[in-house]
Amino acid sequence: MTKYVYTFSEGKGSMKELLGGKGANLAEMTELGLPIPPGFIVTTEACALYNSSGKVLSDDIKKQIDVNITDLEKVTGKKFGDTKNPLLVSVRSGSRASMPGMMDTVLNLGINDAAAEGLAAATGNARFAYDSYRRFIMMFADVVIGVPKSKFERALDEYKEERNMKDDLEMNVDDLKAIVKIFKDIYKEDQGKDLPQDAKGQLYEAICAVFRSWDNPRAFYYRRMHDIPYDWGTAVNVQSMVFGNMGETSGTGVVFTRNAATGENKIYGEYMMNAQGEDVVAGIRTPKPFEELAEEMPKVFEEFTKFSNLLENHYKDMQDMEITIEDGKLYFLQTRNGKRTAHASLKIAVDMVNEGLITQEEAVLKVDPKQLDQLLHPMFDEAALKAATPMGKGLAASPGAATGKVYFSAEDVKTASERGEQTILVRIETSPEDIEGMELSKGILTVRGGMTSHAAVVARGMGRCCVSGCEQIKMKEHADHFELGGVVIKEGDYISLDGSTGQVYSGQIKTVAPEISGDFEKVMGWADAARKLKVRTNADNPADAKKAIEFGAEGIGLTRTEHMFFEPDRIPKMRKMILSETEEERITALDELLPFQKKDFIGIYEAMEERPVTIRLLDPPLHEFMPVKDEDFDVLAKDTGKTVDELKSKAHALHELNPMMGHRGCRLAVSYPEIAKMQTTAIIEAALEVKKNKGFNIKPEIMIPLICDHKELRFVKDIIEQTAKELIAKSGIKLDYMIGTMIEIPRACLIADKIAEDAEFFSFGTNDLTQMTYGISRDDAGRILNDYIEVQRIFEADPTARLDQTGVGQLMEMAVAKGKKSRPNIKLGICGEHGGEPSSVEFCHRIGLEYVSCSPFRVPVARLAAAHAAIKDR
Amino acid sequence: MTKYVYTFSEGKGSMKELLGGKGANLAEMTELGLPIPPGFIVTTEACALYNSSGKVLSDDIKKQIDVNITDLEKVTGKKFGDTKNPLLVSVRSGSRASMPGMMDTVLNLGINDAAAEGLAAATGNARFAYDSYRRFIMMFADVVIGVPKSKFERALDEYKEERNMKDDLEMNVDDLKAIVKIFKDIYKEDQGKDLPQDAKGQLYEAICAVFRSWDNPRAFYYRRMHDIPYDWGTAVNVQSMVFGNMGETSGTGVVFTRNAATGENKIYGEYMMNAQGEDVVAGIRTPKPFEELAEEMPKVFEEFTKFSNLLENHYKDMQDMEITIEDGKLYFLQTRNGKRTAHASLKIAVDMVNEGLITQEEAVLKVDPKQLDQLLHPMFDEAALKAATPMGKGLAASPGAATGKVYFSAEDVKTASERGEQTILVRIETSPEDIEGMELSKGILTVRGGMTSHAAVVARGMGRCCVSGCEQIKMKEHADHFELGGVVIKEGDYISLDGSTGQVYSGQIKTVAPEISGDFEKVMGWADAARKLKVRTNADNPADAKKAIEFGAEGIGLTRTEHMFFEPDRIPKMRKMILSETEEERITALDELLPFQKKDFIGIYEAMEERPVTIRLLDPPLHEFMPVKDEDFDVLAKDTGKTVDELKSKAHALHELNPMMGHRGCRLAVSYPEIAKMQTTAIIEAALEVKKNKGFNIKPEIMIPLICDHKELRFVKDIIEQTAKELIAKSGIKLDYMIGTMIEIPRACLIADKIAEDAEFFSFGTNDLTQMTYGISRDDAGRILNDYIEVQRIFEADPTARLDQTGVGQLMEMAVAKGKKSRPNIKLGICGEHGGEPSSVEFCHRIGLEYVSCSPFRVPVARLAAAHAAIKDR
Repeated sequence: MTKYVYTFSEGKGSMKELLGGKGANLAEMTELGLPIPPGFIVTTEACALYNSSGKVLSDDIKKQIDVNITDLEKVTGKKFGDTKNPLLVSVRSGSRASMPGMMDTVLNLGINDAAAEGLAAATGNARFAYDSYRRFIMMFADVVIGVPKSKFERALDEYKEERNMKDDLEMNVDDLKAIVKIFKDIYKEDQGKDLPQDAKGQLYEAICAVFRSWDNPRAFYYRRMHDIPYDWGTAVNVQSMVFGNMGETSGTGVVFTRNAATGENKIYGEYMMNAQGEDVVAGIRTPKPFEELAEEMPKVFEEFTKFSNLLENHYKDMQDMEITIEDGKLYFLQTRNGKRTAHASLKIAVDMVNEGLITQEEAVLKVDPKQLDQLLHPMFDEAALKAATPMGKGLAASPGAATGKVYFSAEDVKTASERGEQTILVRIETSPEDIEGMELSKGILTVRGGMTSHAAVVARGMGRCCVSGCEQIKMKEHADHFELGGVVIKEGDYISLDGSTGQVYSGQIKTVAPEISGDFEKVMGWADAARKLKVRTNADNPADAKKAIEFGAEGIGLTRTEHMFFEPDRIPKMRKMILSETEEERITALDELLPFQKKDFIGIYEAMEERPVTIRLLDPPLHEFMPVKDEDFDVLAKDTGKTVDELKSKAHALHELNPMMGHRGCRLAVSYPEIAKMQTTAIIEAALEVKKNKGFNIKPEIMIPLICDHKELRFVKDIIEQTAKELIAKSGIKLDYMIGTMIEIPRACLIADKIAEDAEFFSFGTNDLTQMTYGISRDDAGRILNDYIEVQRIFEADPTARLDQTGVGQLMEMAVAKGKKSRPNIKLGICGEHGGEPSSVEFCHRIGLEYVSCSPFRVPVARLAAAHAAIKDR
Repeated sequence: MTKYVYTFSEGKGSMKELLGGKGANLAEMTELGLPIPPGFIVTTEACALYNSSGKVLSDDIKKQIDVNITDLEKVTGKKFGDTKNPLLVSVRSGSRASMPGMMDTVLNLGINDAAAEGLAAATGNARFAYDSYRRFIMMFADVVIGVPKSKFERALDEYKEERNMKDDLEMNVDDLKAIVKIFKDIYKEDQGKDLPQDAKGQLYEAICAVFRSWDNPRAFYYRRMHDIPYDWGTAVNVQSMVFGNMGETSGTGVVFTRNAATGENKIYGEYMMNAQGEDVVAGIRTPKPFEELAEEMPKVFEEFTKFSNLLENHYKDMQDMEITIEDGKLYFLQTRNGKRTAHASLKIAVDMVNEGLITQEEAVLKVDPKQLDQLLHPMFDEAALKAATPMGKGLAASPGAATGKVYFSAEDVKTASERGEQTILVRIETSPEDIEGMELSKGILTVRGGMTSHAAVVARGMGRCCVSGCEQIKMKEHADHFELGGVVIKEGDYISLDGSTGQVYSGQIKTVAPEISGDFEKVMGWADAARKLKVRTNADNPADAKKAIEFGAEGIGLTRTEHMFFEPDRIPKMRKMILSETEEERITALDELLPFQKKDFIGIYEAMEERPVTIRLLDPPLHEFMPVKDEDFDVLAKDTGKTVDELKSKAHALHELNPMMGHRGCRLAVSYPEIAKMQTTAIIEAALEVKKNKGFNIKPEIMIPLICDHKELRFVKDIIEQTAKELIAKSGIKLDYMIGTMIEIPRACLIADKIAEDAEFFSFGTNDLTQMTYGISRDDAGRILNDYIEVQRIFEADPTARLDQTGVGQLMEMAVAKGKKSRPNIKLGICGEHGGEPSSVEFCHRIGLEYVSCSPFRVPVARLAAAHAAIKDR
């Protein structure tokens, strides 16, 4: 028979999976000898069984609960539902990972009309007894049955107003008895039956309610934010009540061993006398700073300090504790590792190393890589944010906060920026032509597109805040306004974006600039010492490259050569190239582009000095370069001597139904070998020049995109090799270079052994690989993923943001194994967006990649995540 | 040391891979004791070495050739390049598979000024000697060196015209000497140097030329048509010449053991006296029917008959032989299994079984499944076709021939059809709205789209001829004309299409209706007895279903439920459903669609009786159903009470950048569960009704498309099960049904074990699976594949037409293994277009699928291919 219930003494601190974090810690604290009210834990396995058997509590589980209640009665000398000395319990959730406040709790359970009388008699405190009863009715009705809480609150407010009372403490026994009566009536009116008086029945129902609360929207959202799997479920802690509301020598408190906001090593918390925990949350009375307890109850404070030091030393982490004082006696109800800000996280880690409490590697593990975004990007001022209500929500595409005036085109952003305005660019979706406007804006908001859409990828590269795929926005193309959450925003109106949560606000919200402390440098240094994975960056120009080096990048994993061609002085030449009718025309146009391309590479090589640089050949479908506006066609017509009609017809011919699976990547080099030739010339000539002029030993890594077949790779490789060989021979300078390929099409993984015969390196392009493996378009993912994640909860994470290790990862592992089989020393890396996402970085470490590459602002995140992976691996 | 050269006596008939078909057969005929002029074979390995070492003949190979020439001189008593008794040889290609006329041949090699004199002396026939010399110069110059053949032909014609000669035989020795002189001058003028006189040098060069001819465009094209891998390469046969041009007792002939056009069991061929082989081809003189040789040279004829019977009995197949008679002595130069029409193929197979020559299973293997198209679709009249010149070429998307007047819209096709015209529909690309026009036309021509584009898939389903992806066409949208190969075709002009080759012709070409013989039924019966794979059909309506049953379909593998909604009385309701703002509105609209859907299924169930029927839930992105024309928006506005503006804005919102990877398939059911509910209702209610009214035991197979995750499958399955359970319970009738899934997204293959926990069957959707695995859009594949196959020769076959066994097949095998692991009795099938392609069907047999499903017209092809697979497997 499966054991579904454990007492705190039966449990162990190591049984978190089964007992949940709270339950395991209660068991551990019991073992450490802390004053813990006795109780038991219904396991996460019981939760799983409940969920899989039609949301019914099995008889087996009920029986085990019954046995434990009987034992609890023996230990406490009280009796469940008793009229003389009734046992009251709290029923609380407790999942494997801490999810503070996300799930439901019922206090004072076991009380009923008779037990209230009994409690009054046993404690000699009738006020306390009826205070507990009214609290129970409201909580039980709200949490377990679903009677709206507001009904009770309104009735209580009315009762107090009529009598001109302000504080609950002004109510005497009769008032509380009257309130109990009123609450019972509300319950009956809403439910059509009386409040259940049977304590056992209350308990079963409350346990089920906690199980169900695992499904509530805020729990769901929290799990997504923190990557907690749905499967885990929650345990339930049933604990005999101790009462902070028993009078003036009783109270309740929440305390941290260190300051959660600043990290300062000083007890930090609040307490409130004659109150239960929820009063602190409700904010009816203002709690007092915890230090004051030292004066009010010095012995309790001293005892607390002893135990809290014990706990911090035991768990080797800052603790967040809940305590109750019942008639002068201290009880611990909970302890857990405390949540903290990024700043506090770093300070606590460094301090604890200095205190000799933890090692440097343990310190590294204490800092969550995801939190680093807080340090690297502007954030909203917390107070200002509290006052703001979001209009709606999109995808958290690029972190940071931004506030500015709305403009609907890149050009308008530019004009407004020249006037000195802070701007937000709002678009249905962005295209390469918008890049300058994106760079000039403070933030970008798009209606369509997922985490790897154009807007998202480019914004992350720039470190610009971006909310993408905000599908709730109602907006037409070429509009001068949009509507979101019932608010109409016109051009020039202020909005604010939180790229770390996806929230969109109307109006201005104050932002706080990022600030990097010495603790950051220290922890990152320890991380660098620990990690095995190298961290490169995706950078398309010298400025980005330099920024990435500051953030600790050790090379470039991806230079997208196409981004360079969207600049105003280059795009006309690019268009001329595309519109060429003959190979000769095309070569002439390419010859005009060559000096630009070469100059770019010289800049990048010089910025990176001798660090490795991977350059990818032209990737996007050519129609992306075509003009949209009539005036651009006019310019082009003049430039090429063709008619506007001819040009439009050619542009139309380039149109594809599914351009992501169209004529792009190496397919361009197959159709137009002269493009690959020009790009190779630029790459090699630039390397030769920098080597000659600066003495840097440049070894370009030339990367061929979108390979799906080994013969295709050989075809393009031949072009590159032939071109490079001639140039190097002509120069008389020795130059090494590598030729490798993106692995971004499922078929490439399947035939990676054949590909590795010709490829000296693989770089996983997990954006495209995820797209093809799932059959979900990066550009259109927003709408689909919203239904899959938010509405129907089919996916737990967005695979375009967090690498799908099961499917996409399986292909990657296959490619690694096959690649190494053909070429044991093959160089392996990743340059998809996942290269900066912590869980994905850990995966890359596990499957044996040599490096990850991500946008400059994510480099520190990747460094830290890589360290986590290496340390956990030991 | 590798042996690169084999004499005919050293070779064996079984060494086809190494010696090529011709070489192996020459060896085998030598062994059988047939009169074969001696010679040797340079192997296919030598060809591979030549290709991989920069197109240079290695010294090692040259040395082995030299040794064999010396041996040949000994055997023949002649000497290479000799002035007295010179050895002349023929140099012919011979690949593993027969590729008649595709590669190059040089005859009379070894002749030069001195040897011509020698030959004249040795044979006492100077006319013959110089006739051979002039033949050699022209062939060598044309084939080996690349001097245009036309220059020689023109000179010869002029010489004869000036002298008023008609037949080459009218030329005497002096004429021929003069011709030799003229030819040598032409050679020198073109090449700037003299014709090489060194026999050895001529030989090396000729061998290289044959190796190179493996790369010539017609060989390349032939290999593609017949799925012959490029890697195979060709062997070269060097054989001592025997001379049909030695006088009136000499001659040459090509003979089949049976009639290649009708299959009749009677010798069938032609011969010509005093001629070499190429004279027959050149058509200067008319050859005589081979029977006449019985009178002209009875002894030779008798000897020939003896040997030809021997060969047919030996090879157990109709033989295609080349013979030469030299001064009254018969020689065989070649034998091979003869090419034949589909009709002849069937007749020969059946006759040979009746003659006791082969078994029924051997007979099945003698009929090429690809040939069956000839029997099932109209074809061009051969004579009429010879007179026509194609304007251009697209993809051979759906077989058959069609001729008709061009119209550019489905509506114009309809109007013209009502006037009784035969029409061809020409479109940039087709969409579901064009279906009626496609049905009414004789053939469809599109500018864009690959082998699995909308036009191709629908046309094959209808058995309608289609050429897709004809990218050379210059045509604008809404045009009334197009241009192809310099010809302008206006609306109403006649064109003709060959859907089996992709050729497009201007003007009318006579077509011949298909005709099915008793032999067909007999062979198909033997095939059915042999095969293990079941063959189902893809059919969306009762008419198609019935047609498929006639063709031998054993069930439906795919009913696309969306095709039903494009009919004029339904599409407005479908549009109403899509444009619903609320779930309620949507349910109301779905309720209107339900009766139609149910009626369709009743029709299909009744047509299929108790054969299995797989019905796929709604698959395409919703925007495909939206109106394009303003008048349709007007109708919709009236119908829904919304403004045209609102409707257009909604239609715009449905737009996706990559709809193939967009909001479609089961993703629709996730967003709108009520659609899946309505469809399930129709499927189950229809089954219940047919069961009740007709007594058929219907067991619907409900198929969920585009699954990429097992939780997604469970979500949709839950909807289906809940709906079905209620309906069945309510009906009081027992009804079984299955729920399964398409496997068409790479990730589904990777997690097939998890998917199989819920799926009772897998049906491989290899159209989409190929698309995603390669990252090549089905709709845009035409342009890309043209460059990959025709221009750069990177791909050998179109993976959308012929299953890529290496990549896509690897995923399929993975899915089969994983699926069976979770559910050993899982039902496995394929419903992609590959289900009707012979090599893909064989692959499906090998990996253990239970059935293939294809369009009705391909069902016989699949049956035969399945039989081939099963027989070869033994």
